[in-house]
Amino acid sequence: MKIVATKENLLEGINTVQKAVSHKNTIPILEGIYLKAKNNFLYFAATDLEIGIECKVQVNVIEEGEIVLPARHFSDLVRKLPNTKITITYLSDILGVSIEYNEAQVHLKGWPGEEFPKIPDLEGNFQLELHTSLLKNMIKQTLFATSADENRPIFTGVLFEINDNQLSMVSTDTHRLVLRIGKINNNTERNLNLIIPGKTLSEVHRIMKDDEDSIKITGNNNQIAFQTQDTRIISRIIEGKFPDYNQVIPTSYKTLIKVKTKDFQETIERANLFSSEKDGTSIIKLSVKDSLLAVLSQSEMGKVEEKLPIYFEGDNIEIAFNAKYLLEVLKVIDSEDINMTLSGPLNPGIIRPGNHNNYTYLLLPLRTV
Amino acid sequence: MKIVATKENLLEGINTVQKAVSHKNTIPILEGIYLKAKNNFLYFAATDLEIGIECKVQVNVIEEGEIVLPARHFSDLVRKLPNTKITITYLSDILGVSIEYNEAQVHLKGWPGEEFPKIPDLEGNFQLELHTSLLKNMIKQTLFATSADENRPIFTGVLFEINDNQLSMVSTDTHRLVLRIGKINNNTERNLNLIIPGKTLSEVHRIMKDDEDSIKITGNNNQIAFQTQDTRIISRIIEGKFPDYNQVIPTSYKTLIKVKTKDFQETIERANLFSSEKDGTSIIKLSVKDSLLAVLSQSEMGKVEEKLPIYFEGDNIEIAFNAKYLLEVLKVIDSEDINMTLSGPLNPGIIRPGNHNNYTYLLLPLRTV
Repeated sequence: MKIVATKENLLEGINTVQKAVSHKNTIPILEGIYLKAKNNFLYFAATDLEIGIECKVQVNVIEEGEIVLPARHFSDLVRKLPNTKITITYLSDILGVSIEYNEAQVHLKGWPGEEFPKIPDLEGNFQLELHTSLLKNMIKQTLFATSADENRPIFTGVLFEINDNQLSMVSTDTHRLVLRIGKINNNTERNLNLIIPGKTLSEVHRIMKDDEDSIKITGNNNQIAFQTQDTRIISRIIEGKFPDYNQVIPTSYKTLIKVKTKDFQETIERANLFSSEKDGTSIIKLSVKDSLLAVLSQSEMGKVEEKLPIYFEGDNIEIAFNAKYLLEVLKVIDSEDINMTLSGPLNPGIIRPGNHNNYTYLLLPLRTV
Repeated sequence: MKIVATKENLLEGINTVQKAVSHKNTIPILEGIYLKAKNNFLYFAATDLEIGIECKVQVNVIEEGEIVLPARHFSDLVRKLPNTKITITYLSDILGVSIEYNEAQVHLKGWPGEEFPKIPDLEGNFQLELHTSLLKNMIKQTLFATSADENRPIFTGVLFEINDNQLSMVSTDTHRLVLRIGKINNNTERNLNLIIPGKTLSEVHRIMKDDEDSIKITGNNNQIAFQTQDTRIISRIIEGKFPDYNQVIPTSYKTLIKVKTKDFQETIERANLFSSEKDGTSIIKLSVKDSLLAVLSQSEMGKVEEKLPIYFEGDNIEIAFNAKYLLEVLKVIDSEDINMTLSGPLNPGIIRPGNHNNYTYLLLPLRTV
């Protein structure tokens, strides 16, 4: 293998695959980045056997071949290289490469390319396409509500549910639930129901570029792949049955308020400074009365009390929520106003964008004395 | 106490004094920021009894008075306040303050102002003045070479040595030594010799603004104060006798090289990736021959070898240094080129700016097999 590339070429490949590199130290070669030079492309790949990422970058290939290089050393070095022509040549005597630039030469030991586990081509039994920016937005709006508790794996992922040309993404950590609906461009499958690991979606969000028109999603009951022209992310699917979310979303309410998203967020951020619980969460009390929303929190250090103007229909109400769960949704909701509907202090509250019905956030209230 | 201020007013005061707030939890009131409203100024102060910082900010004082507020809560809150008029009023019933802005009210408990330890006015027996930018540069160029080892306190500080109108700042951690010389504007004392804690100098560097013309330094054998129009930092002095540094700086050499500072730094940064020692430091071998400087480092992962063009006088030489100690000086030296003088592989190397004699960095070589 021998290639000539720029620092930018190499960084693009490294940055794309890097998060799939294993840090478990059990299989040394998985701590590496696989490189293959072929047909004027340098292919990059990394996998921890749960998620695999591949991409290709156009470079000048002088001799085809493959190698696996230790990810941390290779990436740290490339980041510090000067902006000049970089030549990478396979060195059989050290089972590694020589990296040359200006008057300098680096030798870096690696592993044989053929020992790296192949990232499989999916035998897909479904295939669909979404706008990249839509998928990224749907991930941003659902991923934060997944659970980190590995004892209940289904809640660490996001449900992908397909009905005709509609994709519903749903996540919950049992304290709150998010439902985001989006439109599919192309679809081979009328009905589908898969739980995709949070880490995979986080990588799709990080790697896929907004200038890509659309993302192709293929898969079967075990694996799913997200693909653009130059990049492919493949991941296992989480086994299990997601709870029936339609059942828990209420269809009626007793109180509707409309409030400016940013003002509400900033008020809660201040109120959150007076955390009343040992784990650092704050109980925020909301009191709706006479077209004003009063937000109150208190701790032994003192208290915050702010009043916000709102549009208001229905019953007056006092209700308490966890500040963190309110803040997280206000940060990802993209509308100037939000609608909040409530059905009494012991029933879940619903938050939706002021201008859309494609997003529903359900939040359980806290009981206060 | 009652004042009206802007968010910017309050932040300026908080940011200035914040690093002197104690985190030791032994005397609760020292975790607070002292506020005093008087003569249209709000005075801020904090101290951990080793260092004290005071400053004043112009605000609208409606009623004079004082209070101590918990630093973390007060500072977190102010950072999140909207950009609007903020009224702070003493509340005797909670022994704290009410902070009002827009339609909001925060109550924050504190401590009585009179219980806060006074930061003393220094009975100075010396007084001198330096350009602010010069003092900040001198701190930047010496502070990094102090030791973190509290068992040998004198090496955790920087020596201030005054002879007539010259200030010499010296620091060492026993592996390397820095001497920086600067000119004093005004001076009441012909000879002086003090060791100032590194933390104090770090705060002087952080707080003092480059737009201040000069800094007044006053002190006695126990304490030193750095003062500008609005800010005062007072600190203990470290007891003990600093070693005679003049004795260790060699006056002759066998090899002189001149190299581009930035190129040398970037080369060592790459070489430093192949760390050969368990503590993460790398041994960098320098080889000077035929107007070329070869830089080599190697580990079990591989090696880096780069060649740099140099100006060169004297003997060829091979010598090894700790990469970290080379990098730290190259980052703070402000000249395009550096001069390095060497006297054989077992004697210290000297690095100086290419265009000045006001800065001397002495570095012990490493023995390599």
